[in-house]
Amino acid sequence: MLRVGVIGCGGMGKDHIKRLTNKIQGAEVTAVSDVFEESAKQAAAICGAKVYTDANELINDPDVDAVFIVSPGFAHVESLLTAIKAGKRIFCEKPLCTTAEDCLKVVEAEVASGKHLIQLGFMRRYDKGYMQVKEALTSGEYGEPLILHCTHRNPEVGTNYTTPMAVHDTAIHEIDVLHWLVDDEYESAQVIMPKVTKYSHSELKDPQIMLLRTKKGVCIDVEVFVNCKFGYDINCEVVCEDGAIKMPSPIYPSIRKNAAVSTTIDTDCFVRFKDAYDTEVQDWVDAAAEGAINGPTAWDGYLAAITADALVKAQETGAVEKINAAVEKPEFYK
Amino acid sequence: MLRVGVIGCGGMGKDHIKRLTNKIQGAEVTAVSDVFEESAKQAAAICGAKVYTDANELINDPDVDAVFIVSPGFAHVESLLTAIKAGKRIFCEKPLCTTAEDCLKVVEAEVASGKHLIQLGFMRRYDKGYMQVKEALTSGEYGEPLILHCTHRNPEVGTNYTTPMAVHDTAIHEIDVLHWLVDDEYESAQVIMPKVTKYSHSELKDPQIMLLRTKKGVCIDVEVFVNCKFGYDINCEVVCEDGAIKMPSPIYPSIRKNAAVSTTIDTDCFVRFKDAYDTEVQDWVDAAAEGAINGPTAWDGYLAAITADALVKAQETGAVEKINAAVEKPEFYK
Amino acid sequence: MLRVGVIGCGGMGKDHIKRLTNKIQGAEVTAVSDVFEESAKQAAAICGAKVYTDANELINDPDVDAVFIVSPGFAHVESLLTAIKAGKRIFCEKPLCTTAEDCLKVVEAEVASGKHLIQLGFMRRYDKGYMQVKEALTSGEYGEPLILHCTHRNPEVGTNYTTPMAVHDTAIHEIDVLHWLVDDEYESAQVIMPKVTKYSHSELKDPQIMLLRTKKGVCIDVEVFVNCKFGYDINCEVVCEDGAIKMPSPIYPSIRKNAAVSTTIDTDCFVRFKDAYDTEVQDWVDAAAEGAINGPTAWDGYLAAITADALVKAQETGAVEKINAAVEKPEFYK
Amino acid sequence: MLRVGVIGCGGMGKDHIKRLTNKIQGAEVTAVSDVFEESAKQAAAICGAKVYTDANELINDPDVDAVFIVSPGFAHVESLLTAIKAGKRIFCEKPLCTTAEDCLKVVEAEVASGKHLIQLGFMRRYDKGYMQVKEALTSGEYGEPLILHCTHRNPEVGTNYTTPMAVHDTAIHEIDVLHWLVDDEYESAQVIMPKVTKYSHSELKDPQIMLLRTKKGVCIDVEVFVNCKFGYDINCEVVCEDGAIKMPSPIYPSIRKNAAVSTTIDTDCFVRFKDAYDTEVQDWVDAAAEGAINGPTAWDGYLAAITADALVKAQETGAVEKINAAVEKPEFYK
Repeated sequence: MLRVGVIGCGGMGKDHIKRLTNKIQGAEVTAVSDVFEESAKQAAAICGAKVYTDANELINDPDVDAVFIVSPGFAHVESLLTAIKAGKRIFCEKPLCTTAEDCLKVVEAEVASGKHLIQLGFMRRYDKGYMQVKEALTSGEYGEPLILHCTHRNPEVGTNYTTPMAVHDTAIHEIDVLHWLVDDEYESAQVIMPKVTKYSHSELKDPQIMLLRTKKGVCIDVEVFVNCKFGYDINCEVVCEDGAIKMPSPIYPSIRKNAAVSTTIDTDCFVRFKDAYDTEVQDWVDAAAEGAINGPTAWDGYLAAITADALVKAQETGAVEKINAAVEKPEFYK
Repeated sequence: MLRVGVIGCGGMGKDHIKRLTNKIQGAEVTAVSDVFEESAKQAAAICGAKVYTDANELINDPDVDAVFIVSPGFAHVESLLTAIKAGKRIFCEKPLCTTAEDCLKVVEAEVASGKHLIQLGFMRRYDKGYMQVKEALTSGEYGEPLILHCTHRNPEVGTNYTTPMAVHDTAIHEIDVLHWLVDDEYESAQVIMPKVTKYSHSELKDPQIMLLRTKKGVCIDVEVFVNCKFGYDINCEVVCEDGAIKMPSPIYPSIRKNAAVSTTIDTDCFVRFKDAYDTEVQDWVDAAAEGAINGPTAWDGYLAAITADALVKAQETGAVEKINAAVEKPEFYK
Repeated sequence: MLRVGVIGCGGMGKDHIKRLTNKIQGAEVTAVSDVFEESAKQAAAICGAKVYTDANELINDPDVDAVFIVSPGFAHVESLLTAIKAGKRIFCEKPLCTTAEDCLKVVEAEVASGKHLIQLGFMRRYDKGYMQVKEALTSGEYGEPLILHCTHRNPEVGTNYTTPMAVHDTAIHEIDVLHWLVDDEYESAQVIMPKVTKYSHSELKDPQIMLLRTKKGVCIDVEVFVNCKFGYDINCEVVCEDGAIKMPSPIYPSIRKNAAVSTTIDTDCFVRFKDAYDTEVQDWVDAAAEGAINGPTAWDGYLAAITADALVKAQETGAVEKINAAVEKPEFYK
Repeated sequence: MLRVGVIGCGGMGKDHIKRLTNKIQGAEVTAVSDVFEESAKQAAAICGAKVYTDANELINDPDVDAVFIVSPGFAHVESLLTAIKAGKRIFCEKPLCTTAEDCLKVVEAEVASGKHLIQLGFMRRYDKGYMQVKEALTSGEYGEPLILHCTHRNPEVGTNYTTPMAVHDTAIHEIDVLHWLVDDEYESAQVIMPKVTKYSHSELKDPQIMLLRTKKGVCIDVEVFVNCKFGYDINCEVVCEDGAIKMPSPIYPSIRKNAAVSTTIDTDCFVRFKDAYDTEVQDWVDAAAEGAINGPTAWDGYLAAITADALVKAQETGAVEKINAAVEKPEFYK
């Protein structure tokens, strides 16, 4: 039984605590922490865990085998470095850190520790549809991937959602999952700004088309449209030399009514990727129990950070922006 | 240019006159007839044709090469026999005649004439989807057909529509097209009566499931549901030894809106089979111009009549009713 | 932690032991039994459980809170009656018993015990697709169900598979899930025998069309085709007064290759219903932990038995066979 | 009966002659011309027409009411100017002319003539799928269009097909149909060059992603992939403020076989757009008979030319290239 300490007891923290407690095999939440003691206590009530307000204390609790970081992004770096020092297994919700520099520090600390400790919370790699596409790609039956056409559509966002958030909060998932899908890294980024929907506001250009090119020359277009109104609609088609592969959507009955046959589109990202969250955390628990780590790494977190930076720059310049890692990919992550 | 005389100038007659005049290559309507002179005159105005109130006079007009019968069903037999005697090419809207006996008279008259003269107006054989299924079946790639699952759904019908009309006015199209599809004749019929929809009335059992068995043992189920509310929805799946073939529906864009992706279902049979009507009549004109006849024959009309009779009987008895032709299929039609 | 004793350590028994051990939250297998000691020992090695060769001893082991019966069908009745007497929670793989009489004995024993103890292993009720259709039906948005069109297709079966097995081993799943779907019981059964596929043999009529009518008048057709060659293909469309609902198939990418766009059809029932098995057992464990029982009951097992008997009789007679329970549905199960 | 003179008797010329003769209502081919007399004679044999080797003579033949130009592109300008001078109705296969300058001359000549004479042969506007999308867009139900995602995929091309031909011979159809679809004109063009498929050769970058922006800010991406191997696959999705509309593909049965359900993709552009060609020419004949002209105009031909020029330049520069018409859109074409 893996004894997990959860850092961060907001909405998503509580969700993960419930998941670890009720859904996941082989784990129990033994400690929780939050800077707001009340939140931590409420979360502890779900699972009967110890309560901390200092994340570092939780990390160093000997009853904590593994650390689950769901605190706000800016707080990740300190917890990560502490947990690496303590040699604890780590699950860290995305983003790894809020700056590429901090991401790199974490990468260097993990490399220095000599042990793979961190799984980053990009759950899409655990979505059945993406996994099926990945399997098709690695089967060799379709030759090399050349182009990816993707959409990331949300029904709507609040007025506090601004143009760069289309990268940091939305396209960030594509940034991670797509380079994993084609087993490649990004080389450059561009953003195209179409006519803005009437449902947007002055601080948000919506929709956007984000273009990414990988080192092997795969070209990716991602339509990011966060006020599309009709649903949370994630699509991904991979065009290869010997065929094109389109990711399936979640199943729903097809309904004949009102002179149409229709199928539901999800409207909530947590419903859409519910199973992926479960699978992701179970995989982390299973691996951690054996002293291993699968899934997205700290290096992937660093790549996501520099790619996001390039996209945000490209939003402003309209130009093609290079994506350059400050260091070579460490052998450790290959 | 085939000079066509149209008998019957009601709604459907006028439609055919417009079709022959504006859409079809190689034909012109030179005469029209209707027992209501006013109707005939209105129809004549569309195409500049001679007006008759006596169908037999129209048939014998030397300016009429070919006769197009769209009069009420009960009037078909006389026009058919007159036109056969006159040696004119004939297109006859379904039904051939309203009784099996009359159908047989027409069959015998055509056989006696020694010439193939009659094309019966079962337009589904000219529908692109059915033709594609037929092509797949005759390709041999799928082995023998074993089962057909079909639906014939209408949005709604009037209160004058009664139980037997589910056979005569609705399933009659399946009766013709399905035995053509599998190149076979019917052996027996059964009708199953499910719970009646709240949208029906006391004189109409709706929906019904009609079961037909062919001589080679193909078993067919046809859901006839004439108050299904949602659309005019024609489906046909043929289950074969080496695969199953499902007829496509007409094309419409797929629309993402309101948390669903949807595609239109037709609501009007004339829209659904519009192209089939055009193709059917063009094929008749093309063949007639060369002195030939394609498409459904008078014999098919006879088979439809005896099959419909068996289904109506089966509606009443609930039993399996045999379908027996009074005569062997004439060599003439093989 | 629910301590489970598993009776029957064949292939499916071992599968369930692995599931209970590795996948399911809140259960551990503490004892296993099999008349073949070697099988029991192999199974015990998976989970570190006690080994029995006598099922009754396992049932009465105080370290066994709940009993999981995966022995051959003929052995179920004795284990069920013993476990009821012992007041243990029970999961029993289908069939409940091999005869309707034995099923009734089990029903009576459970009723006499005054406690809901038995969940029967009809996993389809836990399939996401069926659950979505059920949810749509109970939403009231589509009115009353009138007709169900279903297929149960297998790629192929061995030569030891004979005509009645199309009921007992194949349609048995539809028998259970469909009456649950429409919240109704069966009234009569009929079987139609189409032309036999060339891939069948003298002892197997394949395909078959099974017709069921419920007490409320819902009419069901199930195509059972166990040598369809192309896949394990489960379909279910519910035609209602205000719309028709078609169950979705499992997700797979759509592939463009070789002048076609295609999607995988499963070929293995355990792959097709893998998630349903997991959900079913988890639901049993969750309920059992609270002293409750959900899912298919012993009464459902009895209904399945009498319905299967009627279908087998109908295979032979070709007639409509009545389905009559020997007793009224006990209040206990309402 | 519109008396048509056809200029150019190559493969496509003969196709149009057959179409005009056998399919189209209200037209007859009375004259044909080709610089190769033998070709002209063969074509004349199809329809019993007069034979010319000089296109200008054909144009001025008093038995020619309307001129159908299917000669090689470089020869169009002379025939167009001659026919405008003669006041004849004109159907001109695309391209209007091979240079933007010549296109402008034709535009100016037509404007000077004061009569709408030219329909340009961009048949996609007559494709049922595009027309349905257009109808949805003009219904107002989906708000303003913002983004178009398109593909133009061919199974393969010969080794004489080079990079700029991806614009001139392939994307040229999207250039015309897409600005018509959104009722807008282009502002700029960019071309992205992904990794090249192994099936291409040194003179052809394949696939390409062409990006177009309209004056109203609609952003369009067109994947042009002419060695995609799997089919002739035309897709178009229009993302609007209030919904997304995806153009349907042509109908084909869905086939269950070999553990997959599949539907045919066309492999031949003439099969894919067969009906569009027929409808286009019929529309021209119908309009010409009334002294009118519908469909793509000479101005559309000029826009296509300057857009193609910008795309070819963008293929070379990798930059965003402006698309500037040398003159304002004449009132005549509004």
